[in-house]
Amino acid sequence: MHHAIILGMKIREINEFELIDKLNEMCREYSGIGTVLAVGDDCAVLKSTSDYSVMTTDTLVENVHYILPCDRYLLGRKALAVNLSDVAAMGGIPRHALVSLGLKGDTEVEDILSLYRGICSIGRENGCDIIGGNLTGSATEFISITVSGDCSGRSLRRNEAQEGDLVCVTGHVGAAAAGMNMLFAGEDVPAVLSNAFQDPVPRVREGQELVKAGCHAAIDISDGLFDDLGHICSASRKGADMYLDRLPLRDEAVQRYGEKALHYALYGGEDYELIFTIPENDAKKLSFDYSVIGKITDSHEGVILLDKDGKEIKDQTGWRHFG
Amino acid sequence: MHHAIILGMKIREINEFELIDKLNEMCREYSGIGTVLAVGDDCAVLKSTSDYSVMTTDTLVENVHYILPCDRYLLGRKALAVNLSDVAAMGGIPRHALVSLGLKGDTEVEDILSLYRGICSIGRENGCDIIGGNLTGSATEFISITVSGDCSGRSLRRNEAQEGDLVCVTGHVGAAAAGMNMLFAGEDVPAVLSNAFQDPVPRVREGQELVKAGCHAAIDISDGLFDDLGHICSASRKGADMYLDRLPLRDEAVQRYGEKALHYALYGGEDYELIFTIPENDAKKLSFDYSVIGKITDSHEGVILLDKDGKEIKDQTGWRHFG
Repeated sequence: MHHAIILGMKIREINEFELIDKLNEMCREYSGIGTVLAVGDDCAVLKSTSDYSVMTTDTLVENVHYILPCDRYLLGRKALAVNLSDVAAMGGIPRHALVSLGLKGDTEVEDILSLYRGICSIGRENGCDIIGGNLTGSATEFISITVSGDCSGRSLRRNEAQEGDLVCVTGHVGAAAAGMNMLFAGEDVPAVLSNAFQDPVPRVREGQELVKAGCHAAIDISDGLFDDLGHICSASRKGADMYLDRLPLRDEAVQRYGEKALHYALYGGEDYELIFTIPENDAKKLSFDYSVIGKITDSHEGVILLDKDGKEIKDQTGWRHFG
Repeated sequence: MHHAIILGMKIREINEFELIDKLNEMCREYSGIGTVLAVGDDCAVLKSTSDYSVMTTDTLVENVHYILPCDRYLLGRKALAVNLSDVAAMGGIPRHALVSLGLKGDTEVEDILSLYRGICSIGRENGCDIIGGNLTGSATEFISITVSGDCSGRSLRRNEAQEGDLVCVTGHVGAAAAGMNMLFAGEDVPAVLSNAFQDPVPRVREGQELVKAGCHAAIDISDGLFDDLGHICSASRKGADMYLDRLPLRDEAVQRYGEKALHYALYGGEDYELIFTIPENDAKKLSFDYSVIGKITDSHEGVILLDKDGKEIKDQTGWRHFG
């Protein structure tokens, strides 16, 4: 109803409460059952739907995770996707999200509505209601989202990998980093690479299937395949052999970057695929595609990289957030 | 154990995972029962302890809510307090918190440990475990916290104020704004005023008692008494008469600011006291101190300010976040 007023306006020009009302309205349109009292009070009130729940939070920050101007709709989708991916990595069922935005005064109101449309759209695709949040001014834009969800007594932890487990990964690795670098260089980017970076698909269904299939440990790829598998190894006090020739790279990334595509796969991060460790017999039951990229060992030396001849390759350091 | 390494170091000089380990360790020391798997995996896993839950999120941003340098321990306490206050305003029982930090590279590691000590200390005072979070770089520092908690089927909403209810408030109003202005002016600040601004006490116990006492509606004072009572009025489709001579001002604020102390009480915000509406007979049962500052009416004109002779005073506009 306020569209006529809002079009062309900047955040600092409209009443904060008006914007909140507008965003609340959008969230209500998308929202499902199970929420007793959603947006519009001091807290959301929720009816419990399982004995256990999961909770996670993740934040995207301007000039760290994205650069403005950008497609705010896709940015909204990604901001929620990275959280849904964490729920997926536990085998949980996402239910509710709270969205906290830090916004600059000269932000176009329409851009924030787009951002929220993105958040709501991927929420709906994954059964996750947007139940509230917070708006504040900030000299640096950020989007901090918290998701809660249901889980059964079993969940996919990092610390239960067993010697002999296959190390597997969903989808492709290194595509997000390749896509990001091509985008920032202003090149024409193949859709599979730009999508991997801008609109990653959280593996929510796969995570839930892995719980039932007897998967031992799982994590999603945010820091990078090498570091994230390393987290499983150190939490489980195990090692892992990783077969570099088995990594599921995108042909488009190899064509553009050659050898460097492998580097992106190991250290690029942000793929939001699931790495999981599972006994070979249980892996055979899985209904979705995955790649076997290694094996859990009883070594305590973390992740060992092996070339196609089984020869060890020395690793390089993953990226750091505060660099 | 890493103290010797960490002292004197800046965020950009230490490994992100090392800092996370250090913070996780601190959270575990403080944490209580009810958490199945806390910090250190993709999600926290929680055992449900009631049929309904509440969730809320709030963020403090550098140069909007605080100015650096400042006491990071108190800042941590306040960052969680504002969320606990939202849970209190619903009559909920806080249980779990997730902490998302955006940090500049030149931040002293010791300052972040202090911040976390502050968060953990007020968490423990209120039965709220810190179960996880997120660290990221950011050109502007921010602290975004999400709290979940238990609640009974009844909660203190904004939209159930009834005609004839007393409008009451806990503690004092305007003290936070007075304290903030004196601090920023570099004046000697009486402790009650600086504490009101820097270390507000969330009214968690009072909120839970209000649920049992038959309170109709409640909200905490973040935007300011006038605006926040206005939220109750518009959600409940009622009006309110507010008696300006009954507002519980701090003597110290009146001594310093005279008439302006009343302005701070109405529009200053950040007091984190509870405004509640309750039938007179139910109010008599309450075991804690409160002030009666008005009455809910059947008018639809929002909050009417009345002087000691019952004469209407025109209001002034509350502050805006994006200004």
